[in-house]
Amino acid sequence: MNSNKYDLAIIGSGPAGLTSAIYAQRALLNTVIIEKNPMSGGQILNTYEVDNYPGLPMINGFDLGLKMREHADKLGAKFVTASVEKVEKTEDGFSICIRDKEPIEAKTVIVATGAEHITLGVEGEERLKGMGVSYCATCDGAFFRGKTVAVVGGGDVALEDAIFLARGCEKVYVIHRRDEFRGAKILQQQLLSMENIEVLWDTVTEEIKGENAVSGIKVRNVKTQEEKELEVNGVFIAVGNRPDTEMVAEIVQRDEKGYIIGDETGTTSTKGLFVAGDVRTKSLRQVVTAASDGANAVYSIEKYLAEQGK
Amino acid sequence: MNSNKYDLAIIGSGPAGLTSAIYAQRALLNTVIIEKNPMSGGQILNTYEVDNYPGLPMINGFDLGLKMREHADKLGAKFVTASVEKVEKTEDGFSICIRDKEPIEAKTVIVATGAEHITLGVEGEERLKGMGVSYCATCDGAFFRGKTVAVVGGGDVALEDAIFLARGCEKVYVIHRRDEFRGAKILQQQLLSMENIEVLWDTVTEEIKGENAVSGIKVRNVKTQEEKELEVNGVFIAVGNRPDTEMVAEIVQRDEKGYIIGDETGTTSTKGLFVAGDVRTKSLRQVVTAASDGANAVYSIEKYLAEQGK
Repeated sequence: MNSNKYDLAIIGSGPAGLTSAIYAQRALLNTVIIEKNPMSGGQILNTYEVDNYPGLPMINGFDLGLKMREHADKLGAKFVTASVEKVEKTEDGFSICIRDKEPIEAKTVIVATGAEHITLGVEGEERLKGMGVSYCATCDGAFFRGKTVAVVGGGDVALEDAIFLARGCEKVYVIHRRDEFRGAKILQQQLLSMENIEVLWDTVTEEIKGENAVSGIKVRNVKTQEEKELEVNGVFIAVGNRPDTEMVAEIVQRDEKGYIIGDETGTTSTKGLFVAGDVRTKSLRQVVTAASDGANAVYSIEKYLAEQGK
Repeated sequence: MNSNKYDLAIIGSGPAGLTSAIYAQRALLNTVIIEKNPMSGGQILNTYEVDNYPGLPMINGFDLGLKMREHADKLGAKFVTASVEKVEKTEDGFSICIRDKEPIEAKTVIVATGAEHITLGVEGEERLKGMGVSYCATCDGAFFRGKTVAVVGGGDVALEDAIFLARGCEKVYVIHRRDEFRGAKILQQQLLSMENIEVLWDTVTEEIKGENAVSGIKVRNVKTQEEKELEVNGVFIAVGNRPDTEMVAEIVQRDEKGYIIGDETGTTSTKGLFVAGDVRTKSLRQVVTAASDGANAVYSIEKYLAEQGK
């Protein structure tokens, strides 16, 4: 057995992983945080402005990530930059296989690997991210009050986003590639009753336009092949998320989309394996809910280790 | 009907209430926050230092409360200073009865009134609060590393606190007024196996001593009446909490201790009435978990109002 036997290994260092690290250090658990990227922060690193993390209004996402990382550093947290390939169950814990290195052994694991927004892959999308292209209406909607925006998608999240945005925006286009929504009927009803929402059925996005900020969107009707351009200030892309959970696929229960099934305490189907943040099955994915998950998961681990007499 | 018909009334402005206010303002809900005290912040106002709110290390509790309040103010949140006497269900929402004023009418309510720690009521306790007297080991334990502390109580929380503190402290006394613990057997086993924990059975606390910081504790054995003094640097009081829920006792389900029964989305037994923060049935009561509750409750309310077509 490897001599690196930690009480806790945290995989991922976005808000959930960093909060886990802060709580674990304060609980005096011998902990390692494994992050595949050179920077901590996760998804918020790409967020132009976060205005809903209580106490730090209007903060740049990069700065918020940095502040949380510094908090963990101050408490002496140990970070390792490595890409986790697989987590295996061992007799008394877990073996975390990482690329080109010895595996890391730990009694408990918190999976805080987050989720990635699925992108459209169209021209302008990557370039204008944070400059009008957003993947989170709850996060960024308030910046578009009185403006015109487009929502791309047809599921629950897209419909919720459109309804939410329509309350503050002048006009909301919904761009959907099929001729009916997948989202809940009640949301469809609500959406179709709002006068400032216009749905473009059977329509796909071809390009997002703009120099330093989004100025328009080029769309095409897949039945008539008709193309047109809409003037919009923002594009909200809501075509789904992809959680990063392949590494634990064989040892823990996931839902049909790949999220790890866990309750608010972070408890999963596997003893000793806990989950925190966007990668968990939950209703609202925000910085503050991810951070809360990290605190809860460490608290659960303290109780688990005490019960095991470890 | 009163003309003050809000979309949402938030009762309480600790971290849960203030985060609810931040999310509600961003969701453009017509919202009022009702706080009985002249200052927002709730329990953290009396916390000397908060070191586990991610991104704001080593912040004074008063300052953290202020920062969250300023955040809500910046977004235009409307605060009313008033003492809520009762919340009544009306045909299409709630009527909030406040002392000496007209009732406030709202379509939905978030109860974020928090919980108060039960005090011992002994000399020195109030005066040395935050100077060695603490009601939260998870919050303040890290400040007593290598020191000697006493834990007062015999339930789950007291046992958990003692085990947690014993990992970092030189010595931990547990002062319990009975001759057996109420807390879980597994915790008792764990506690009794730790060499640096000493239990004083049948013992009550008479006085907490110290000039500008706790220096000792005077205890008395209730069977022998023997009194003695222990030198300690900190006293952790874990004799229970009292949630502030009388105002909604008749309209929502509470547990045997008076906490409002609610899941992580803030949903309760009463449609339109949501719960956030320490006042909710939950496993871990911290600033960051309270804040998370506020975000979740508002998200639930947005969905609820959309479903009602309100």
